[in-house]
Amino acid sequence: MSSDNTILRTVVDLGDRSYEVCTGEGILGQVGYMMRQHNLNGTVAVISNPAVLDLYHDEVASSLDDHGLRSVFLSIREGETHKNLDTVRHLYEELLENSIERGDSIIALGGGQTGDIAGFVAATLLRGFDFVQDPTTVLAQVDAAIGGKVGVNLPLGKNLVGAFYQPRFVLSDVATLMSLPEREFRSGIAEIIKYACIRDREFFVYLEENLESLLARESRTMLHAISVSCGIKAEVVGQDELELTGVRSILNFGHTIGHAIESLTGYRRFLHGEAVAAGMVAAGHMGTAVTGFPGEELDRLVALERVADFSFDLGDLSPDDILDRVRFDKKVEGGRVRYVLPRRLGEVIPRTTVPEPVVHDALDYVWALT
Amino acid sequence: MSSDNTILRTVVDLGDRSYEVCTGEGILGQVGYMMRQHNLNGTVAVISNPAVLDLYHDEVASSLDDHGLRSVFLSIREGETHKNLDTVRHLYEELLENSIERGDSIIALGGGQTGDIAGFVAATLLRGFDFVQDPTTVLAQVDAAIGGKVGVNLPLGKNLVGAFYQPRFVLSDVATLMSLPEREFRSGIAEIIKYACIRDREFFVYLEENLESLLARESRTMLHAISVSCGIKAEVVGQDELELTGVRSILNFGHTIGHAIESLTGYRRFLHGEAVAAGMVAAGHMGTAVTGFPGEELDRLVALERVADFSFDLGDLSPDDILDRVRFDKKVEGGRVRYVLPRRLGEVIPRTTVPEPVVHDALDYVWALT
Repeated sequence: MSSDNTILRTVVDLGDRSYEVCTGEGILGQVGYMMRQHNLNGTVAVISNPAVLDLYHDEVASSLDDHGLRSVFLSIREGETHKNLDTVRHLYEELLENSIERGDSIIALGGGQTGDIAGFVAATLLRGFDFVQDPTTVLAQVDAAIGGKVGVNLPLGKNLVGAFYQPRFVLSDVATLMSLPEREFRSGIAEIIKYACIRDREFFVYLEENLESLLARESRTMLHAISVSCGIKAEVVGQDELELTGVRSILNFGHTIGHAIESLTGYRRFLHGEAVAAGMVAAGHMGTAVTGFPGEELDRLVALERVADFSFDLGDLSPDDILDRVRFDKKVEGGRVRYVLPRRLGEVIPRTTVPEPVVHDALDYVWALT
Repeated sequence: MSSDNTILRTVVDLGDRSYEVCTGEGILGQVGYMMRQHNLNGTVAVISNPAVLDLYHDEVASSLDDHGLRSVFLSIREGETHKNLDTVRHLYEELLENSIERGDSIIALGGGQTGDIAGFVAATLLRGFDFVQDPTTVLAQVDAAIGGKVGVNLPLGKNLVGAFYQPRFVLSDVATLMSLPEREFRSGIAEIIKYACIRDREFFVYLEENLESLLARESRTMLHAISVSCGIKAEVVGQDELELTGVRSILNFGHTIGHAIESLTGYRRFLHGEAVAAGMVAAGHMGTAVTGFPGEELDRLVALERVADFSFDLGDLSPDDILDRVRFDKKVEGGRVRYVLPRRLGEVIPRTTVPEPVVHDALDYVWALT
């Protein structure tokens, strides 16, 4: 563990909705101080889940208490199947029954699903509460907690209900990552690799040199990798908050195929990062045919993912299953199937139409890797 | 009926969320043209209710069709009891089943409840649709459709779930007011009187001189009264979009007592404007004790309301019932009971604490008017 108390601050620059992402080690206990610093002085409702509360309830409760803030802890069940309007309605009622009022705040303490649900509740109860993200997973720290996308699923599909609702600040404590199960930690690494691929060639080289140290959860490496990732996410979001210009869509590198893999398997067999890892390689292979992405760089991407132990073993799914699903997903969302393709490591081209035979070849390539 | 095609335009100035409120007579058929003018080119989902669709479906459908816009009409049931999350969920599903996609638009065609529900759906489905308000009641044209407050009720209270979500434009056709039942039309007049009381002494005098013509739905008078009201609402909202500074709270003149009357009677016995009419007189009477509001001006307010045939007959409700309810409502919303009190006709003082005996006297005064 690092002994210094450095907090790395990244600004998400959105005019009067700007905020800081603060990344550090062992800083969760500063949450009360930071609430006050941001002028959040009312009651604090902490929305979390049982596993996370077991670990961090006391630290967060005493930090809020030490700064004179009344707190209420609400626990929701984990998992995509609970990320729905019933959970939202239940939280509305619990918050009101706990006398949460206009001017109070809501903290999401947990992973991406907790943040998505709590953020949607914060956006819509009494026309909006001040909202704070305290993400405790790699995926939430580098992705879900930054950028204001909040929402829940409908039976018809994932994240169909939601809003853009920015937090007042994000507090990411990498010490909370020490308790993550190995598989979940590794899954988050896929999103970190994604940031390197889409915007930062130098960071890709850093990951090639330091991925084993990151996997060993060496704190300096975690801090660096997570704060660089946050910086890239913040920059992209700052350029296209509402996903209107196409800039923000580069964050979907690897996600078109990734989502198809996840939804075909009911969000149960693969973790998000595992599916995205396969999707990035597929997009890389399409890139070699469409954008001139060098085959040697695709090899480097595959090699890096192998270090993170992504297996590419997609079981009984076939490339045709994936293709059918991609077509279906796009029909629901509207419009043609488009991909984010790499031109070189560190640079992608958004919204590219790819001929289906090229997509099929790319999927065959991924399948052959297993 | 006026024969000219004048459209009165009021800008709600909210930076990059600014929009126009267009008031005219017989302009509903311009909706397709205006959608195009605002670059809204996708499918249009019109959310309305059976009574309104009976009258205006064909006009709106052909206007959208004439401008090459695919339209889908969805009907929801009227009334506060249907303004809830079940209706919202039902609309989400219907919209998705009708292949409504990112980039399409939602129009609210109807009264305030229709606009509140449709606006909340527009704010939260697929993280937000372009939204247009086509209000068809006095209350919606001068109040609900302007300012971005959207939302639904929970069993625990009214409008507890919602957002600030501004429309792209508001199209108010005063011709649609001709079909309103007499009682509903008159109820809307209370909000028009409110605007005069809070911001525009000259408009109050205009109403004293023209209320009978307004009640007769003479089109020039309706156009003038509605567009002046819209202008005041737009100005107040432009100064305090998110209800943070207190400026916007002046729109609640008459509403503290008004809401208590409505909620005590289950939103069934009195229309909103009828309750607000009594609330404004009560606030006026408190003003005579607290702010120096001249008794002669209170008499003018009462006289004006009598012309509009507000009866002040509150049946078996007692002043003590009202006081209890006001205390309870404030407890739910948090904070002390505060009133918006007039200083003179055309000027109010927001957030005034009033001693309970003064409130009681004011209620006794209203009761004595019946």
